[in-house]
Amino acid sequence: MTGTLVIDNIGLLISNDPSLGEGPLGLVTDAAVVIADDRVLAVEPSGSVADHRIDAAGRCVLPGFVDSHSHLVFAGDRASEFSARMAGRPYDGGGIRVTTDATRAASTAVLTDLTRGRIVEARAAGTTTIEIKSGYGLNVVDEARCLDIAGEFTDETTFLGAHLVPAEFEGRADAYVELVCSAMLDAARGPAKWIDAFCERGAFDADQCRTVLEAGRRAGLGLRLHGNQLGHGPGVQLAVEMGCASVDHCTYLSDEDIEALAGSDTVATFLPATDFSTRQPYPNARPVIDAGARVALASNCNPGSSYTTSMSFCIALAVRDMYMTIEEAIQAATSGGAAALRRTDVGRLSPGSAGHAVILDAPSHHHLAYRPGVPLIWATIGGEPQPGGS
Amino acid sequence: MTGTLVIDNIGLLISNDPSLGEGPLGLVTDAAVVIADDRVLAVEPSGSVADHRIDAAGRCVLPGFVDSHSHLVFAGDRASEFSARMAGRPYDGGGIRVTTDATRAASTAVLTDLTRGRIVEARAAGTTTIEIKSGYGLNVVDEARCLDIAGEFTDETTFLGAHLVPAEFEGRADAYVELVCSAMLDAARGPAKWIDAFCERGAFDADQCRTVLEAGRRAGLGLRLHGNQLGHGPGVQLAVEMGCASVDHCTYLSDEDIEALAGSDTVATFLPATDFSTRQPYPNARPVIDAGARVALASNCNPGSSYTTSMSFCIALAVRDMYMTIEEAIQAATSGGAAALRRTDVGRLSPGSAGHAVILDAPSHHHLAYRPGVPLIWATIGGEPQPGGS
Repeated sequence: MTGTLVIDNIGLLISNDPSLGEGPLGLVTDAAVVIADDRVLAVEPSGSVADHRIDAAGRCVLPGFVDSHSHLVFAGDRASEFSARMAGRPYDGGGIRVTTDATRAASTAVLTDLTRGRIVEARAAGTTTIEIKSGYGLNVVDEARCLDIAGEFTDETTFLGAHLVPAEFEGRADAYVELVCSAMLDAARGPAKWIDAFCERGAFDADQCRTVLEAGRRAGLGLRLHGNQLGHGPGVQLAVEMGCASVDHCTYLSDEDIEALAGSDTVATFLPATDFSTRQPYPNARPVIDAGARVALASNCNPGSSYTTSMSFCIALAVRDMYMTIEEAIQAATSGGAAALRRTDVGRLSPGSAGHAVILDAPSHHHLAYRPGVPLIWATIGGEPQPGGS
Repeated sequence: MTGTLVIDNIGLLISNDPSLGEGPLGLVTDAAVVIADDRVLAVEPSGSVADHRIDAAGRCVLPGFVDSHSHLVFAGDRASEFSARMAGRPYDGGGIRVTTDATRAASTAVLTDLTRGRIVEARAAGTTTIEIKSGYGLNVVDEARCLDIAGEFTDETTFLGAHLVPAEFEGRADAYVELVCSAMLDAARGPAKWIDAFCERGAFDADQCRTVLEAGRRAGLGLRLHGNQLGHGPGVQLAVEMGCASVDHCTYLSDEDIEALAGSDTVATFLPATDFSTRQPYPNARPVIDAGARVALASNCNPGSSYTTSMSFCIALAVRDMYMTIEEAIQAATSGGAAALRRTDVGRLSPGSAGHAVILDAPSHHHLAYRPGVPLIWATIGGEPQPGGS
C-alpha cells in the first residue's frame, strides 16, 4: 500500500510505550495510529487524516503478537498420539521422529503450502512476527530445505538440528552433534538467523548443547535454547552462561534458575499451551516476574506437544494458570516476544515502531483472557509472516 | 432453502448413531449427509446427488453442538471483575447484581441486539441448539422481557428468577421466592419452557429451590437446577429427587451424588469454562461416567463466571482437565447436551434427526482438543439460534 494509513477511532490503544500513555502498557484512549511504509509515524487523537483509513469504531488495538517460538515447517499430524496421551500415556518426546519421517518424505511444494496454511491461521489469530525453527529434517539436506521454506515467511529463522537424535544416529548422539556442528550448520547458516538446541533428558545434555551453541556463535548465528521442560535441568543456567537471547519452556525452575535469569539479558519464554497439551503442571510466573526476569509467551506451535497458533489462548492460560496479570501476559506476548528475538521495532505501537497491529472485536485487552476460546481478532495489520511468501 | 441439500465428500462423519458406523460415535468415512426441510433424509456414500451441494472436501463433519446452559440475555460486561479475581480476589457470585442493574437499564432493542451478537458468535463456533436462561431481570417485568428476547432465538428458554436475591429483597429471600413462584412465574410461563434455580451458598437453599421447582412443575415447565458449583451441597440430590432433566455445574460431587445421578435420568452437566474463569478446581468426570451417569458439556456463557461461547474450548478443557476421552467430550457436547434438554432430534446426524451440522476445518474430531484455541469451525449448517431472530 502506498501513502499513509490511519487506524482511527481506537477506543483503547495498548502502545506498550509508557511515555505515550498510562501504566506499563502505555494505554491511550480515543486514539489514532498513523502508519507509513510499515512504520508508525504518530499516535494522535481520533479523527486523524491519512490516505487510507480503518475505522476501529471504539475497539481495542494492540501491537501484533510476537510469537518467538514455533515449529511451523512439518508434514503430518499426531492427533492420535495426542488422544492416547490424554487417555493416560506419558509424553516422552519420542514422537518427534514420526514428524521427521513425514517431513523428509514431503515435497518442498507441499511443505511450503502446509507452512503457508499455518501462517494464514497465525495471522488470523493476530500474530505479526513469528520465529520458525527447523528441527524435523535432522539431516543436511532437509534441515536446509526447511530453513529455506521458513525464510519465505519470516526473517526469524532458527536452525534446530539439535532437536532430537534421529533414528539413523541412535546410540551415537555425539556423532550426530558433530554433524550438526559441521556440514548441517554449513548448510543452515545461510537461511538461519538463530541456532537452538533441545537441552533435556532424552534429547541433548548440557555439554552437547554448549558445543552446538558455540559452533552456531562462530558461524554468526544468535543463540536460543530449549530447557527445563520435563524436569529440573541445566538448560537455564547454560542459556544464561552462553548469553542466549531466550531460554524456552521454563516449566521447572529452581530458585537458582530464577536468580540467574533475573541477573541476565536472557528472556524466560513460557509455552503454556505445551503444558496444556502434554498435561504437565504449569510453571508459576510470579516469582520469575517478581525477581525481575524478562518473560515472554509463545505458542510453540508444533504437531506433537502444542498444535495451536493462538497467542490469545496462551495469554488466557498464563493468566489463569501461571498467575500473570492480564497486563503482564499481554506484554509477554508482544514486547516480551520482541525481547526474546532481540527486536526493539516490534511489540509496541509508538513513533518509529513497526506498524504491526491487531484490532480486537472487544473494548479492552482484558477480553483476551476474559473470553477464552473466542476468536476476538477483528483485523491483523502489517507484519512479516505474509501468507504470500516471497 | 427449498429442495434437498447434500453435504458431500465428508472425510469422517460423527453420526452419534452406532447403527450407522463404528463405535459409540457411529463413525462413517467417505460419507454424504442428505438433508431436506431441516431433517436428515439419509447418510449415503460420497457422491450423492441433491438440489444443493456443499463440498466438505474430506473434512470432518459432526452434529452441531447442543449448548444446554447459557445466560445470553444481558447488558454490560464484567471484565474488570474478572481481572481482579485473576489477581487474587475470590469469586462469591455477588457480581450478578452488577449485570442485573445493567440489564434492567437496557432497552429491549439493545438487549435483543446484544443477544443476537452472541448468537452469531455461538453459531460461528458451531452451536446449533442453545438453551438461554433469564436471571438478570429478577423482577416481574424484566424476567418476562428477557425470556421474550430469548424466545426470539431459541425454543429452549429457561426461567431463572431464582438466580440470586436482588438487592431490593436483601435479607428477605423467602419473600423473593414467593414472588418468583407467583407473579414472576405467571409472567414467565408463556415464554419459558423450563424453570431453573441456583442451589448454592449465597443464593438459594434446597427448600427454597424445591419450592421454586414445584411451582414451575405446576405451571407446566420442565425442571433444571444449578448445583454443587462452589462446594458440596444438596443440589444434585434435590435435582434427582425432583426428576430434573439436568443438574448443572457438578464441580463438587460426593460418592452419593454420583450414585444418585447414575440411578437417574438426570444429566450431570459440566461447565468447565466456568471452572477456568473462576479458577476453581475442575471436576473429574471419570468416576461420573464410569458409574453410568449421563453427562453433558455446556458453555454457561455469562458475563460473570464464563464469558465464552466456544464449545470447542469446553471440549478441550474436559479432555485435558476432566479426564474425558475426546470421544466422550464430543458426545457430551452434542448428544449429551440433547439429553440434558430431553431432546432426541438433535445431537446426532442420522435419518430422521435434525439437519444441524458442523464442518470442521480438520480431518477428525480429535482436532477439537488437539488444536486448542484454534477456531476450527469451517461451516455451521441449520439449527435453531438463527441470528435473524423472528
